[in-house]
Amino acid sequence: MTPPPAAPGGPAVPTESLAIGQRSLGDPSVRFPLWPPLTEGCPVTSTESVAYPVEVDYAYDKVPADFFATAAERPRGHERWAPLLPPLHSPGLAEGGTPLVPLEDGVWIKDESRNPTWSHKDRLNRVAVGAAAGVGAAGVVVASSGNHGASAAAYAARAGLRCVVLTSAEVPPAVDAFLRGYGAVVLRVPAEARWPLLRRIAERTGYHPVSNLTPAAHTGHGFGPEGYKTLAYEMFADLGVVPRVAFVPTGYGEMLFGIWKGFAELVRLGCAERVPLLYGCEPAAGGPLAAAVRDGVPAAHVPLGPTAAYAIACPVGGYRGVVALRESHGAALLVTDDEMTAARSELARNGIWAELSAAAALAGLRRLGPQEGPVVCVSTSSGFKDLDLLTARPSETIDPDDWPAVERRLRA
Amino acid sequence: MTPPPAAPGGPAVPTESLAIGQRSLGDPSVRFPLWPPLTEGCPVTSTESVAYPVEVDYAYDKVPADFFATAAERPRGHERWAPLLPPLHSPGLAEGGTPLVPLEDGVWIKDESRNPTWSHKDRLNRVAVGAAAGVGAAGVVVASSGNHGASAAAYAARAGLRCVVLTSAEVPPAVDAFLRGYGAVVLRVPAEARWPLLRRIAERTGYHPVSNLTPAAHTGHGFGPEGYKTLAYEMFADLGVVPRVAFVPTGYGEMLFGIWKGFAELVRLGCAERVPLLYGCEPAAGGPLAAAVRDGVPAAHVPLGPTAAYAIACPVGGYRGVVALRESHGAALLVTDDEMTAARSELARNGIWAELSAAAALAGLRRLGPQEGPVVCVSTSSGFKDLDLLTARPSETIDPDDWPAVERRLRA
Repeated sequence: MTPPPAAPGGPAVPTESLAIGQRSLGDPSVRFPLWPPLTEGCPVTSTESVAYPVEVDYAYDKVPADFFATAAERPRGHERWAPLLPPLHSPGLAEGGTPLVPLEDGVWIKDESRNPTWSHKDRLNRVAVGAAAGVGAAGVVVASSGNHGASAAAYAARAGLRCVVLTSAEVPPAVDAFLRGYGAVVLRVPAEARWPLLRRIAERTGYHPVSNLTPAAHTGHGFGPEGYKTLAYEMFADLGVVPRVAFVPTGYGEMLFGIWKGFAELVRLGCAERVPLLYGCEPAAGGPLAAAVRDGVPAAHVPLGPTAAYAIACPVGGYRGVVALRESHGAALLVTDDEMTAARSELARNGIWAELSAAAALAGLRRLGPQEGPVVCVSTSSGFKDLDLLTARPSETIDPDDWPAVERRLRA
Repeated sequence: MTPPPAAPGGPAVPTESLAIGQRSLGDPSVRFPLWPPLTEGCPVTSTESVAYPVEVDYAYDKVPADFFATAAERPRGHERWAPLLPPLHSPGLAEGGTPLVPLEDGVWIKDESRNPTWSHKDRLNRVAVGAAAGVGAAGVVVASSGNHGASAAAYAARAGLRCVVLTSAEVPPAVDAFLRGYGAVVLRVPAEARWPLLRRIAERTGYHPVSNLTPAAHTGHGFGPEGYKTLAYEMFADLGVVPRVAFVPTGYGEMLFGIWKGFAELVRLGCAERVPLLYGCEPAAGGPLAAAVRDGVPAAHVPLGPTAAYAIACPVGGYRGVVALRESHGAALLVTDDEMTAARSELARNGIWAELSAAAALAGLRRLGPQEGPVVCVSTSSGFKDLDLLTARPSETIDPDDWPAVERRLRA
């Protein structure tokens, strides 16, 4: 595919990435070249029982002083923030730029359903699929039964790359159709077989993995989580200040880390005095981040009970979340399905139809009670992907000539 | 509900509407006060066989000279364009501001799935529900089995108003759940009973109707289509010029009219020299606008054959579409389901998963062949609402240890 022309509007921008290399989160003195992107965490500091991710380092001294102040003049999408992202080697879809929707005095919902595939995952996949293009891979492979897979499929399609999505056997029909809509090859396999098959496909085909490969702890893709930094940049740009507190639905903690890192860069570059207090909001049925913080370990495995918040239901965590909470002086919050259901209803009453997992952040705020603002709750995706959507009892038909029956329904 | 605080960011803006009254499209000299909004078209020029809509007139001489040049400095959502919209009496959701995604040299997709309820209908409902709040109605009532109903439900919820949605018995389960997600009362009734029941509910409850009430021709809500003008404003703001050609999926023609009127205002205010050539793209199974243009009448009834493009499958048209095509020197294009399916696949290969109706615009461009640019195709909504989504055969499960079988699937 011929790359599409650049997005219209705005003056010429610095489009070059200032990324200079990869660095271990386990020991920041352990450094690696920028290419190839490490897809299995840090090979030096990781052990059989603990896996540390890597992150990307940048030539921060070369960031223009007015970089954030002039953001609105630059084109939409990750291009706006290109100097502080890994190289964008594949075309975008104007990802990000989602609005802060006012909820109540001092509280905003960052509505991530306004992304190209209607979830926050587009911020990661623009970067991770770009890395695949950067190494000359013919395709990407991803294990996901939801937003991540669809987003990878969309960006792969746009880049002219193949995409293989390994889903569980229980993938909701709407998500299955969503994945295939972009032309991805969808392989439904038993949940426990997904990770070994992912590795096998990556090794045998050279397809670039854009989801996790490490069983000991989540390390994920070395470049991908950098894409979530743009959430912090946008909050700062839209509020004019960094929030005082931010609540974030948390599965493996990649977004939590990206948001923290974006704020930390704003502090480093002199735009903010402090990083917001960050709360990682996990389903109470699991909660590997809460367990890791409690036990003082880099990552934890936990038993995972039943929860409908499938997008953030993880039995294993990763060190990124621990770093984000430690450095922001934040905390892990466990929220129940009932609390998420109540928060989802509250969002709907305000015109935002979110999936259950997306309501974890507001559930966290409601659990803690009123906070000094500005407060931002990240709502990650739309209600279309909830498992219960298609099994719900349909609305009853009604006899249009039976006015008393109509009236009863109106009063219900 | 206490209205939420204003959206953050940006300097103080002129937030007052410059609307001065309503005017008949049948005879522009026939004028009405701004309030109450006329929900059944023009009561003076309409006859039993032809119904003419009304539109809103503004004090254009009071629009600041730098109104469009300074748009990006103002908050997101309809607030950005408030002077050229009817009064916004209820809170918004940062509607609009959708990106132009590059497709090929000189061609952009205006991705309306990036709206608060993931379709263009939010632009109308922000205005129409605001009108309901403006007249003090306790609720809104709408006949829709899709995007329009969900959008009305979202804006009603946000405004603290009740919402009743009359759907056909065949409403897709995902859409049914979507409507109820916002707390709307969903009444499933036979298709032919929807309009009489809508009128009855409006008359007996005082709920404000935000969809059509007139059987002779579509007139719709007097204020609502004004919201679509923002599509034209945004194209101009993002491209720096007005497009040369725009393709628009067309059902009742409200969006087509709104886009035309927005461009006509840009010409009137000295920002553009000409209105783009507009193509209204209808399913070939129906096509009331094509019939009206062919027969030289203000609106036509046509037989409606089978089509999966249900969001734009209308047996009756309205005068708004005829005005838009006449004044823009454009044309009505009939596109087949096969052409829309091909266009939907082309969009998906570029990372945009659209519903079949949304692909009508690109299908229109492909039917006409290459055009001098800039060309904009409006893609109205996401693939989640297509009828065939939930009946599609799911992906096959696969034995993860059977590598030859995996390989066959990868090569497929």
